[in-house]
Amino acid sequence: MYAFNEILQKIEQEIAQLQFPHPPKSLYDPIEYILSLGGKRIRPALVLMACNLYKEDVEDAVKPALGLEVFHNFTLLHDDLMDEADMRRNKPTVHKVWNANTAILSGDAMLIAAYQLIGETKSESLKEILNLFTVTALEICGGQQYDMEFESRTDVTEEEYIEMIRLKTAVLIACALKMGAIAGNASKAEAEALYQYGINIGLAFQLQDDLLDVYGDTATFGKNIGGDILCNKKTFMLINALRRASDAQKAELENWISKKTFDPAEKIAAVTDIYSQLHLKELSEDKIHIYYEQAMKCLASLSVAPERLNILKEVSARLMNRQS
Amino acid sequence: MYAFNEILQKIEQEIAQLQFPHPPKSLYDPIEYILSLGGKRIRPALVLMACNLYKEDVEDAVKPALGLEVFHNFTLLHDDLMDEADMRRNKPTVHKVWNANTAILSGDAMLIAAYQLIGETKSESLKEILNLFTVTALEICGGQQYDMEFESRTDVTEEEYIEMIRLKTAVLIACALKMGAIAGNASKAEAEALYQYGINIGLAFQLQDDLLDVYGDTATFGKNIGGDILCNKKTFMLINALRRASDAQKAELENWISKKTFDPAEKIAAVTDIYSQLHLKELSEDKIHIYYEQAMKCLASLSVAPERLNILKEVSARLMNRQS
Repeated sequence: MYAFNEILQKIEQEIAQLQFPHPPKSLYDPIEYILSLGGKRIRPALVLMACNLYKEDVEDAVKPALGLEVFHNFTLLHDDLMDEADMRRNKPTVHKVWNANTAILSGDAMLIAAYQLIGETKSESLKEILNLFTVTALEICGGQQYDMEFESRTDVTEEEYIEMIRLKTAVLIACALKMGAIAGNASKAEAEALYQYGINIGLAFQLQDDLLDVYGDTATFGKNIGGDILCNKKTFMLINALRRASDAQKAELENWISKKTFDPAEKIAAVTDIYSQLHLKELSEDKIHIYYEQAMKCLASLSVAPERLNILKEVSARLMNRQS
Repeated sequence: MYAFNEILQKIEQEIAQLQFPHPPKSLYDPIEYILSLGGKRIRPALVLMACNLYKEDVEDAVKPALGLEVFHNFTLLHDDLMDEADMRRNKPTVHKVWNANTAILSGDAMLIAAYQLIGETKSESLKEILNLFTVTALEICGGQQYDMEFESRTDVTEEEYIEMIRLKTAVLIACALKMGAIAGNASKAEAEALYQYGINIGLAFQLQDDLLDVYGDTATFGKNIGGDILCNKKTFMLINALRRASDAQKAELENWISKKTFDPAEKIAAVTDIYSQLHLKELSEDKIHIYYEQAMKCLASLSVAPERLNILKEVSARLMNRQS
């Protein structure tokens, strides 16, 4: 059985070897650029790990794993363009280094390149893996659509928010695990349990990300604290703050939300203070804990020797304290 | 064997029945909009026709045919955004009806939906059809990349231009024919001959399109005459005009190309006049004739009863006089 660092090493090697041999080279430069920026490689790692639960040889899972990583980076490329984000992993985004049209077209080529890798799955599992990938990819587009629509809405419910992050974040993690299970010839029940593990750990991860955006430490979080607050993102925190606030707190929150000009540090401090008064840190932590425990239950339900599950438990822990 | 209008009818029925059941509906509205604008449906028709050369029952070719039509409309959606085109088939383009982000994201979903249809190909031919589709899709992205790069270049050669239109236009027509052949269980040699027919008829079609942009009749051409001249598009005509022009003609051409403000009708008339002096209409027609004859030779090489080829000859003729 592979160790965590062996899996990551294998993936980095495979990514470094990815080739886009067709001209024009200029179409593929942005693809190589965004793939070279690194990232946790958590999705391809999960494909190989899930496969490795059932089979010592994970070769059949390598192409689908790479396909998912290329796809994930494609979504970042197009999302950064749509969100007008200037930086990604401390480097300028593709539409900043090149331009919007390059980001659109090279992004499209990247989505096709992801399908090319998925298409190299061995014939027996091709149809199932291809279908899982397509359904997941459409769900992720749906999640991004909701995310953009929520920007101009003020009545987003907690339920809608959870559904949005399920689509935007959790289904790809779940898909990675299920793909690995399929490539490893696991039973349908095992593949489904891994999928549900992925959904729950994905939701826990995203809620944790939202929490760290408010209460995290800049050095370890890797993004600036308060980004969600500054752009009035309807996170679990803001939705619950608006719901639980007293009239005075609500008026203050709405004042900050509607302000066009403000001192960023002042807004972050004021909104965070309301969150703290409303004990939203604890509320979030409770919610995260529920999803995390649900994820662990799904893992425990697998018909795999308990010691083989340690690697997924390690991933779960790494995901949650955001070190990986 | 199906008649031309039966094939078109079948395709329109299938397109009308396409469903995108996953929420959010707002993600799929632009997809339904662009598919409802019509168009010649020539690519899906070619898939069914090619299949029908070898098999009476074309059901196995329907999903790949729909996949290609959805893909083709996806390329129009993203190309219109990149080219800042306001109108498509006399209706406002998707980024005009909605906005740029919707065009990006719904376009992405449309590319995935195309793969979903391709993925419904029956298992025996799935791997081959999927791979053909992916290679073709990457080539088309390459063609669009060259097309955009040529805008800022003044030294584009005829060879480079032909390669660009091969990638941007011809390979999808060729892919449609080859897909149909594969779905019809034709031999490799037959599928390849149909592919080459598609490349040649595709090149002839695009060169004809360029010619009609200068010498066509507004009523039947369906676009405004002179569009390529106004935006200095490096077509076969302009490339050859710059190569064949006398010093005086070249100076006049370059003057029109570099002018930032001008009377459109005056520019079109002046450039067309130089084209006529240089006999570029005849030069274009000769080139078109060569590709057309080459296409007919590919058709004649098929091991199919000659009368079964009439439908493809009819398509070829329709494509060339642009009535379809």
